[in-house]
Amino acid sequence: MNTTDLLARREQLLGVGAPLFYQEPVNIVRGEGVWLFDADDRGYVDMYNNVPCVGHCHPHVVEAMHQQARTLNVHSRYLHEGILDYAERLAGLHADPLKSIVFTCTGTEANEVAMLMARVSTGGRGIICTDAGYHGNSTEVSKLSRPPQDINAEIRAIPYPQRYRPLQDGVSESELTELYLAEVRTAIDAFQVSGIPLAGMLVCPILANEGLPDIPDSFMARASEIIHDAGGLFIADEVQAGFCRTGEWWGYEVNDFVPDIVTMGKPMGNGLPLAGVIARKELVDNFRQHRRYFNTFASSPLQAAVGMAVLDVIETENLRQNASHVGDYLRSELTKLQDRCEPLAEIRGQGLFIGLEWVSDRHLKTPDRDGAVVYVNRLKDKGFLIGNAGALGNVLKIRPPLVFTREHADLFLTAFEETMGEIDAKA
Amino acid sequence: MNTTDLLARREQLLGVGAPLFYQEPVNIVRGEGVWLFDADDRGYVDMYNNVPCVGHCHPHVVEAMHQQARTLNVHSRYLHEGILDYAERLAGLHADPLKSIVFTCTGTEANEVAMLMARVSTGGRGIICTDAGYHGNSTEVSKLSRPPQDINAEIRAIPYPQRYRPLQDGVSESELTELYLAEVRTAIDAFQVSGIPLAGMLVCPILANEGLPDIPDSFMARASEIIHDAGGLFIADEVQAGFCRTGEWWGYEVNDFVPDIVTMGKPMGNGLPLAGVIARKELVDNFRQHRRYFNTFASSPLQAAVGMAVLDVIETENLRQNASHVGDYLRSELTKLQDRCEPLAEIRGQGLFIGLEWVSDRHLKTPDRDGAVVYVNRLKDKGFLIGNAGALGNVLKIRPPLVFTREHADLFLTAFEETMGEIDAKA
Repeated sequence: MNTTDLLARREQLLGVGAPLFYQEPVNIVRGEGVWLFDADDRGYVDMYNNVPCVGHCHPHVVEAMHQQARTLNVHSRYLHEGILDYAERLAGLHADPLKSIVFTCTGTEANEVAMLMARVSTGGRGIICTDAGYHGNSTEVSKLSRPPQDINAEIRAIPYPQRYRPLQDGVSESELTELYLAEVRTAIDAFQVSGIPLAGMLVCPILANEGLPDIPDSFMARASEIIHDAGGLFIADEVQAGFCRTGEWWGYEVNDFVPDIVTMGKPMGNGLPLAGVIARKELVDNFRQHRRYFNTFASSPLQAAVGMAVLDVIETENLRQNASHVGDYLRSELTKLQDRCEPLAEIRGQGLFIGLEWVSDRHLKTPDRDGAVVYVNRLKDKGFLIGNAGALGNVLKIRPPLVFTREHADLFLTAFEETMGEIDAKA
Repeated sequence: MNTTDLLARREQLLGVGAPLFYQEPVNIVRGEGVWLFDADDRGYVDMYNNVPCVGHCHPHVVEAMHQQARTLNVHSRYLHEGILDYAERLAGLHADPLKSIVFTCTGTEANEVAMLMARVSTGGRGIICTDAGYHGNSTEVSKLSRPPQDINAEIRAIPYPQRYRPLQDGVSESELTELYLAEVRTAIDAFQVSGIPLAGMLVCPILANEGLPDIPDSFMARASEIIHDAGGLFIADEVQAGFCRTGEWWGYEVNDFVPDIVTMGKPMGNGLPLAGVIARKELVDNFRQHRRYFNTFASSPLQAAVGMAVLDVIETENLRQNASHVGDYLRSELTKLQDRCEPLAEIRGQGLFIGLEWVSDRHLKTPDRDGAVVYVNRLKDKGFLIGNAGALGNVLKIRPPLVFTREHADLFLTAFEETMGEIDAKA
């Protein structure tokens, strides 16, 4: 079936406006490692997908899923050793005292649990987030993306901390940290004025959706202290940052602090719906006792087997180190192109999560979303799948499966340089 | 590892209060058809689990999962024919005009979408539910289980319609229907007084969690008309009722009406997290355009392949007919035991979803939750897994995989009669 017919069927069956990538969408039928193939068997280097973190269709993960699916897959109100083994191994990868887990199916559900857990444990209601984050699609969690403009709202956003377009120009880095921390204090005070006790703060520790900004030094650790002093809990949404994406196991390690509650998702099951929340035991106990939380498909033997297999591959294939090394290599090679690529104002990120700030004027820092979209689509035509994201939609987002190698990076760099030439020739 | 050690590890890793079945929990390691096996290879006839609707580890479903997992499993912002084929087949099983679908991972997420869809489409906020339902675990959806007692609350509960403990004694069935419909009108009026425009009504069409009551005649169809007249939409939560559980494809068919929005879940993927919402196209279009809904793991090729395989098995193994015939058989055989089983006050349900009303006094209709729990645990000891549920926790809940046969029913009936004898001897 051709693209036009598929699109028409899709609008009929899934409704108009079901999200779709690229000006000419691709019809992907097969995946292997970092490669995706369309219906004409054309290969694309996947530089977007963090969910299949150990690579598309990794045989060890596929085999673990198959073995468990043919053995047992049932809900969690029976005892099952597999889920405990997985929970134990996962807890072992986290900082003390993060040792007890609530499994869910999606990142949205994990953030639902985290917000409830913070509210149950503190007795508070108010939650602070940033003004350009995304944490999920449910009614409650999506308030973190679009905080209601209401004096009585239980969600308040602060401007996300960044160096590129700072809250105030011409200040030192430590002054900038203070300015953003003052925003946290202002939000706390505003809750107090409204009579809403604080429950905590929920952010992505690397501010992925905001556009992977360079975060003013010590912001996360200091914000966490301020939240604690005000009686709240600090929640790190590691749905994007976690599982070695940054070259560290967790984004909170990159930013040198330990959150009270951590949510995990996307790469956790390499595509099987698997997500969860880890926290210190007393917080999890409190939550369970208040909510009697049960999630039909979560905490299942299937989730455990697949999650375990993903950890196996990350460790045996040294994917944390690979993310770190290949990410550094790609950033440093991109830096070499920067002089000849006027719109490429900044190269940011850690590990295999790279953000390229795209502008039409480097001096004025004018965001160039349209220019970014042109690159995304041209690179797709050349066989490289990336995306655009960020608070202003102008950040090229490079986030390949963690099995992405230097060789894949070189292929991409050639295509990127080629695109630069074509755009220049056109200008 | 023995049960005591497993329990201790579980409390450590998953927190105190993670839900668990039976006074002495079972350690299930393997499943096949209607059978579950513990670590000592002792078999249990599963008469509880509706999620593995075509049977535990059905080879056709396992194979479809394996084939797709090794081929492609990626998010839905690329084109993929498999998900459209599945959506089309699913839509073909529903009444007109239910033809467009939003896929999710869990029933909670499906009910989140349904509530948002009703609110977006009507511009209203108020949603009516029953006073003993359960529709999911998120902040918003769980308000349907515990409606806030607040004049400004956007959720209002009506007493769930039933014949066994009716709103008023000594009235005819049609009068009883009117009494419950009056409750719907009262809720609509209360929303109006509070200045909250109506969005709709959300109920399980067979009132599964309420305890599978006999619903006064025409209640659902009439309530739906009243909701429409007040500008709202009627949402049927088919997460439990759907996929032939009742002997019909959908619970709304049993109750002879067509909802505006239907949510589906549990049995849909035989254990793979798969759920969704079906509605007429304009409602789905509206929702998509207002919300740009995206769900990372949903609408995936894996969900489609597994969902499709489940439909294959239901159809090729005639499981709808099986549910109807075996369910009728089991109910009629239980009826024969009723004279000798004083607590068994009523045998309700449709297809392979049976509720046994358990009382300590048939005349006073005194609910006997403790007595029900004794039967649940004794039957477990004899190798039959059932549960207790209902508004008062006193309804024995029998809901086996749809591959449950007359032979399994006979095994159960023998054990049930045996239990009756033991309890009698003790009394």
